[in-house]
Amino acid sequence: MDKGILIVVSAPSGCGKGTILGEVLKDEKFYYSVSATTRSPRPGETDGVNYHFLGKEQFEELISKDGMLEYASYCGNYYGTPRDKVLEKINEGKNVILEIEVQGAMQIKKKCPEAVFVFIAPPSVSELRNRLVNRGTETAEVIEQRVSEAAQEIQHAYEYDYVVVNDDLQQAISDFKAVVRAEEIKTVNQKNIIDEVLKNA
Amino acid sequence: MDKGILIVVSAPSGCGKGTILGEVLKDEKFYYSVSATTRSPRPGETDGVNYHFLGKEQFEELISKDGMLEYASYCGNYYGTPRDKVLEKINEGKNVILEIEVQGAMQIKKKCPEAVFVFIAPPSVSELRNRLVNRGTETAEVIEQRVSEAAQEIQHAYEYDYVVVNDDLQQAISDFKAVVRAEEIKTVNQKNIIDEVLKNA
Repeated sequence: MDKGILIVVSAPSGCGKGTILGEVLKDEKFYYSVSATTRSPRPGETDGVNYHFLGKEQFEELISKDGMLEYASYCGNYYGTPRDKVLEKINEGKNVILEIEVQGAMQIKKKCPEAVFVFIAPPSVSELRNRLVNRGTETAEVIEQRVSEAAQEIQHAYEYDYVVVNDDLQQAISDFKAVVRAEEIKTVNQKNIIDEVLKNA
Repeated sequence: MDKGILIVVSAPSGCGKGTILGEVLKDEKFYYSVSATTRSPRPGETDGVNYHFLGKEQFEELISKDGMLEYASYCGNYYGTPRDKVLEKINEGKNVILEIEVQGAMQIKKKCPEAVFVFIAPPSVSELRNRLVNRGTETAEVIEQRVSEAAQEIQHAYEYDYVVVNDDLQQAISDFKAVVRAEEIKTVNQKNIIDEVLKNA
């Protein structure tokens, strides 16, 4: 069996990343990588679902053993991607989706150059602003901050292999799936294909 | 507008390449590159449709001016791919499909490293033999020759970027389309995407 693919996905807030990944993850060939953190669980959060909740020492031991594919410290807590689970699922043939911000993605790129990097972008920053305004859940100030952050993040799009523009949602889902399928049938990812075709020739 | 993509396709005879490409070419975004030859048209063949029929001097002048992306001589006649038409269509934003055997494909690879190389393979050589036998249009001798040639060609599959296995026809068509779509949304093929997303930010 061929190994699965590690797919690293970044997107500014409000680009529909959650909806696109939710659709993709309906396929059992995909596995969503759950982050680890040292912050305390909030009401309703479940260990292993929302996060792997780890103690600070446990987290730092993983760091020291190179057990984190990437990590960052934020507001006094660690957040990161435990290496073992990701590799285990890839070896089982699952495509592992790792949803992460730009800096984390660039850390992964150094450790896993064979991973596939996908950036999900809005059709335009002004359209992103419209969507956030129409959603009506954020103040004008928060919206402008998000738009400004999005514009910053989009500057890094060229460090990714693919850019999926979420203009039409169905097209964006289809594009994301096309990327994964194309990667699956890349010659480098079908290492036994010649032997398989030629067996019993 | 982004440029189109040059897609070089090779497949052993009997792999369903014609059916797959026929389906893909229904989309007007694709253009099928017609080869040039110095052999005489056969009854029913139309210039510019089956081949561009050229005189020997005309063909050799194109060779000398580097006007052929690849060419070969076979049974005393030249066969090749005129460069101008291919580049013209790519600049118009069309995805150009170039159906060609392995040696020609490798010539293209040297001249156009940015082209995408797709090899279409049967699920197995024995399945290819079954299909040819069931088709009932070839003698046993011709079938064995084709199977033997196919086995030779498949050895070169690793020189291509992608291998589409034609086990289920609809899956093979879908895979081929996924490859093209993924290539279209590669960051390197969306050179203006950041500017487009950020305009009027």
